[in-house]
Amino acid sequence: MRNFDQNTITEAVLERIANTPDPRIHEISAALVRHLHNFVREVRPTQAEWEQGIAFLTATGHMCTDTRQEFILLSDTLGVSMLVDAINHDHQAAVTESTVLGPFYVEGPPELPSGADISGDLTGEPMFVTGSVTTADGTPLAGAIVDVWHSDEDGYYDVQHTGEEAGIVARARFRTDEAGRFRFWSIKPAAYPIPHDGPVGKMLEAQGRHPWRPAHVHFMIEAPGHDKLVTHVFENGDPYLDSDAVFGVKDSLIRDFARFDAGTAPDGRVMEQRWCHLDYDFQLNPASSGAARAA
Amino acid sequence: MRNFDQNTITEAVLERIANTPDPRIHEISAALVRHLHNFVREVRPTQAEWEQGIAFLTATGHMCTDTRQEFILLSDTLGVSMLVDAINHDHQAAVTESTVLGPFYVEGPPELPSGADISGDLTGEPMFVTGSVTTADGTPLAGAIVDVWHSDEDGYYDVQHTGEEAGIVARARFRTDEAGRFRFWSIKPAAYPIPHDGPVGKMLEAQGRHPWRPAHVHFMIEAPGHDKLVTHVFENGDPYLDSDAVFGVKDSLIRDFARFDAGTAPDGRVMEQRWCHLDYDFQLNPASSGAARAA
Repeated sequence: MRNFDQNTITEAVLERIANTPDPRIHEISAALVRHLHNFVREVRPTQAEWEQGIAFLTATGHMCTDTRQEFILLSDTLGVSMLVDAINHDHQAAVTESTVLGPFYVEGPPELPSGADISGDLTGEPMFVTGSVTTADGTPLAGAIVDVWHSDEDGYYDVQHTGEEAGIVARARFRTDEAGRFRFWSIKPAAYPIPHDGPVGKMLEAQGRHPWRPAHVHFMIEAPGHDKLVTHVFENGDPYLDSDAVFGVKDSLIRDFARFDAGTAPDGRVMEQRWCHLDYDFQLNPASSGAARAA
Repeated sequence: MRNFDQNTITEAVLERIANTPDPRIHEISAALVRHLHNFVREVRPTQAEWEQGIAFLTATGHMCTDTRQEFILLSDTLGVSMLVDAINHDHQAAVTESTVLGPFYVEGPPELPSGADISGDLTGEPMFVTGSVTTADGTPLAGAIVDVWHSDEDGYYDVQHTGEEAGIVARARFRTDEAGRFRFWSIKPAAYPIPHDGPVGKMLEAQGRHPWRPAHVHFMIEAPGHDKLVTHVFENGDPYLDSDAVFGVKDSLIRDFARFDAGTAPDGRVMEQRWCHLDYDFQLNPASSGAARAA
């Protein structure tokens, strides 16, 4: 096989990978080659534009560290993450909708007792979070793992801090009680721009887009016999609900963060300042059989 | 804009980038979103497969250094580099065909006098290279810059060596004389596998492909008023001519590396062992007006 032109090259690559042993790898490889070549044939990049593309991907890779995932940001901002989410979670009305994982989840957060305050040294408006985890028909799921993480009042996650500020904060794991309930204290998260000091930030700027996400709390919930749920709860009234930089907002995931004056909170804690209360009941799908829902 | 499903998400992203100031960036961004989303809708990746894709791109970025360009290898092995080359160089029969740049070019090679031996301390079969640079109608181009680079007899480029072996070798810049001619000595390059100890190597293995390229010498030739030519000359008879891992072979770029017994070479050098001679006459295109041919 030699002497390829801009049409025959695609068939040549497809022939070359025709003997891929794993059928799924073959399927994905062949689709990648076809769609990628169609993209290139449509935009007809100059050699200089191809070099810019290579440089963009390289810079994106170099931006990735243990605590910064620039390719996830790229996937998120191009709508790919929400597309993959939609493909894997055709919404069933009775269960909680999912949304993007985002780049700030950290494996193995510390497990804390129910009611713990996870805000550490952070300042901000105290936030009481309560909720339940049930099956689609409302049966409580006891012992479900509830991972939570969110930004501080300046819009930063713990992993974005370095040096003396570093440490796990506004991030923890809880387990539901016999009634399927969990609760914890923290501080109210803020709307924030996704990290935009790297290649993805340059892309957003070139596309005339802002990098902001509406304020939200992340939840990842697991219970035996059920699909893992990855979602957020967004703050009602946030100005970025309709222009989330990563396209993650769904109406069913918006809640009031109800404001209360100083006084006694439902768990008996005496509050000397205004605080807010977020309550959300999560319903999980029964475990799906196929790989299409595997997490 | 909220509540996107796997079909409406694409339109949502396209709306978001609708005000991209630069029309070319808008064109490329919109095409990328459409083709990328079509790819994802076709293969329906699981969340785990999406994570593998992110991990693959991240590893590819982390593999890139000053002397290793894994994203170029990825582009080359997926046929994208040759597709971009074909788009930008619709072949005109009278001029020399182009092929991939590859990942081993280094900016600013040392300029050496005509006839120099660029093989340094390398062992191997001596190779005499002669050639000319002319316009499409055969008019000699004096003072043309001829960059050359090639592998050693084990198939490695100088930049792949580190430590005591490191240094510029089998790589140089020459200028054509008044008759448009150049000549130099080196050692015969070997067929070699592209670097396959990284993510691209794993991809080739998963796709049941070998990583080999047929033996070749790289040329990059520039002359005022003409398009830059990026090409190779391949060795006739190489077993990998029909399965080049990067799809770069064209019949017009294949030449005999003619073998000679010990004796006196055309430039008067007395050879005490067998040597080979590669001769190639390059024709350049007149400079194109538009960006489509800019390098």
